[in-house]
Amino acid sequence: MRVKPQTLKGFKDYLPEEARRRAFVVGKIVKVFEKFGFDPLETPTLEYAEVLEGKYGEEERLIYKFETIGGDRVAMKYDLTVPLARVVAQYGPRGEQVLPMPFKRYQIQSAFRGENTQKGRYREFLQCDADIVGVDSAVADAEVLAVAYEVYKSLGLEVVIKINDRALMVGFEPKFLAAVDKLKKVGETGVMTELTQKGYPFEYAKSRFEEISSNQESARLKEIRAVFEKMGYPPEVFEFESTLVRGLDYYTGLIMEVNIKNDENSSSLGGGGRYDKMIGKFSDEEMPAVGFSVGVDRTIEAMTEAGKLDVGASSAKVLVSVFSPEMMEKALEVGSRLRSNSINCEVWLEPGAKLEKQLKYADQKGIPFVVIQGPDEVAKNEVILKDLNNRTQESLSVEQLVKRLK
Amino acid sequence: MRVKPQTLKGFKDYLPEEARRRAFVVGKIVKVFEKFGFDPLETPTLEYAEVLEGKYGEEERLIYKFETIGGDRVAMKYDLTVPLARVVAQYGPRGEQVLPMPFKRYQIQSAFRGENTQKGRYREFLQCDADIVGVDSAVADAEVLAVAYEVYKSLGLEVVIKINDRALMVGFEPKFLAAVDKLKKVGETGVMTELTQKGYPFEYAKSRFEEISSNQESARLKEIRAVFEKMGYPPEVFEFESTLVRGLDYYTGLIMEVNIKNDENSSSLGGGGRYDKMIGKFSDEEMPAVGFSVGVDRTIEAMTEAGKLDVGASSAKVLVSVFSPEMMEKALEVGSRLRSNSINCEVWLEPGAKLEKQLKYADQKGIPFVVIQGPDEVAKNEVILKDLNNRTQESLSVEQLVKRLK
Repeated sequence: MRVKPQTLKGFKDYLPEEARRRAFVVGKIVKVFEKFGFDPLETPTLEYAEVLEGKYGEEERLIYKFETIGGDRVAMKYDLTVPLARVVAQYGPRGEQVLPMPFKRYQIQSAFRGENTQKGRYREFLQCDADIVGVDSAVADAEVLAVAYEVYKSLGLEVVIKINDRALMVGFEPKFLAAVDKLKKVGETGVMTELTQKGYPFEYAKSRFEEISSNQESARLKEIRAVFEKMGYPPEVFEFESTLVRGLDYYTGLIMEVNIKNDENSSSLGGGGRYDKMIGKFSDEEMPAVGFSVGVDRTIEAMTEAGKLDVGASSAKVLVSVFSPEMMEKALEVGSRLRSNSINCEVWLEPGAKLEKQLKYADQKGIPFVVIQGPDEVAKNEVILKDLNNRTQESLSVEQLVKRLK
Repeated sequence: MRVKPQTLKGFKDYLPEEARRRAFVVGKIVKVFEKFGFDPLETPTLEYAEVLEGKYGEEERLIYKFETIGGDRVAMKYDLTVPLARVVAQYGPRGEQVLPMPFKRYQIQSAFRGENTQKGRYREFLQCDADIVGVDSAVADAEVLAVAYEVYKSLGLEVVIKINDRALMVGFEPKFLAAVDKLKKVGETGVMTELTQKGYPFEYAKSRFEEISSNQESARLKEIRAVFEKMGYPPEVFEFESTLVRGLDYYTGLIMEVNIKNDENSSSLGGGGRYDKMIGKFSDEEMPAVGFSVGVDRTIEAMTEAGKLDVGASSAKVLVSVFSPEMMEKALEVGSRLRSNSINCEVWLEPGAKLEKQLKYADQKGIPFVVIQGPDEVAKNEVILKDLNNRTQESLSVEQLVKRLK
């Protein structure tokens, strides 16, 4: 039976050029995470459904859940925070005691949300998180901000980090805050409309909204700011925003959101905050935690717009073409020679193909150089190196070729 | 409601030490793949169920399938080969024409199989595949063997690559070959028992089994071997094994399996082969393909046994301890200084903690060095560097510290 080849709706294939960009960006992010001593963690794609249930408020309906043939009720990862909480409860001081505390981990894995598909948002997306579990201090909060700052700096992006303190919003109902959260998208009028639709009397809603708007930086935020400066970072990276809410209910202190500088109405590049009550849902004990998540897809978009993402489309730097079937052996030799000198190269694999086809292939794939070796070159112990970008070519010995491409 | 923190049965958490090993090994593998000009591809965790159905023979029952709330019948990735076939049909010459041919891709993602859990086998596992689509030549086959050889070489493992040619087994029923496939595990008697249980008369089964056993290397295998040697590789890496079958039905030519040298009865480290009929299941046209898959978990195990996996347990090379709350600022300064010199370091994040607790933490985590800076050191503009492995310490200026740790 022939099947129509199609990607599942709401999901995405990353063909080589895009996959290379992702790998490049993720590599940079990992470097920063490790610079601060965060260690990697990987958790399964599937969890017992009850592990995820009751953690995400109204978003819970977006979780992919099903029953396995073995009869387990399972759910696909919705984020990396709840699995982290599960891991800490399971292996930490109240569990198997194999995790030294504090636990600083990063995690880079897919999460799944059955959202309505919008432009550029997919139901499976890569999460890149760094969290510190087991410390409640302004130093820990500041470190997370420092990590965020360094991540975007290493990617060549100038950002502003909006901060707020959820402790300033204690006493507000989650559904009230959910409306305030949309301020950027729908404006104050939109927020008021939603609040009255949710049953809040207009005057009450207005005065309570103004209460939030007029909040000032908390003592903790000032302390975090001071630590951040002591670490040698520029204070103007920070911006207090009293109406910043950050969707999820589980935040308890610092909340943060990263925006491109001078383009602060576009969607955020990442965010995070302190959540001191989450791990208690699995354990006998509360455990403080603070973390940050990079929105990889949005970040790649912003880098592309800013012209900061210059990753070649191909792994290979050079294609060693095959002039004729008899020249295959020579091509294989040159290929092995280049590789043993750590030069990524492709040798054309079809002995009978026309040179034209091979050149077209290199061009399509974005391989910058092609090596050509016909009988004349072999006689002179030389190769021709074609530069496809400059449309130039030169004759070289294999030794010179290696030097030239290194 | 409090939930018991537990990993889903049959699945596994990779805590930092193990996750670091995986990242190290995967990094080495990617380097080799890219040296040969393979480019990355990522496909979704979920596919339309029909994409996976009818591709895996009797193993199909192990696929995780479910219906989404939106009513789509979906399946979780079972391997990376069928998604590759779907991608080639969808974007290749008979589809959207955005993939230059031949298509050489690598893919490193999780696959899911609802198998009975055995020791060391999990229902989610990392696949690391490299495949060449669109060329049917001995050169392409040899390149895949070369990639396999280089992968294990770069990991410090001495291997033997068993090869066979499925074309030699045309005319044998899949269920007959499925029994032969178990030869290593159950011996010849076991194979005969299974064949007779499957309904083959004993004499017939025996003579047909002997037919397979006495096969000689095919012309194609000899050609592949010649190319492999021309590439500069030692011919003795190869071993023809007439009874090698490789489970899956879809192979059509070369099949290969990698084993640790001198320990060839242990389970294989990876395998692959040529499968020229798979892509035709999605497209109007057959499309030749050959590939190889590294068994990451098994490979890590073998490296550990061989003492070839020496990855530090921690990202951080040094912990900058905090002598007392007043010393926090100095610690932050030293930390920033080390990081700006590309030295991965952790600064202790809890100002009031005892030094003893901090040293214990570094020890538990496997951080090799600790920096200590009390009021005496500050007065002398120095720090103490403790080497936790050698149990030695020295006094240094911050400048010397940077040099020492670089």
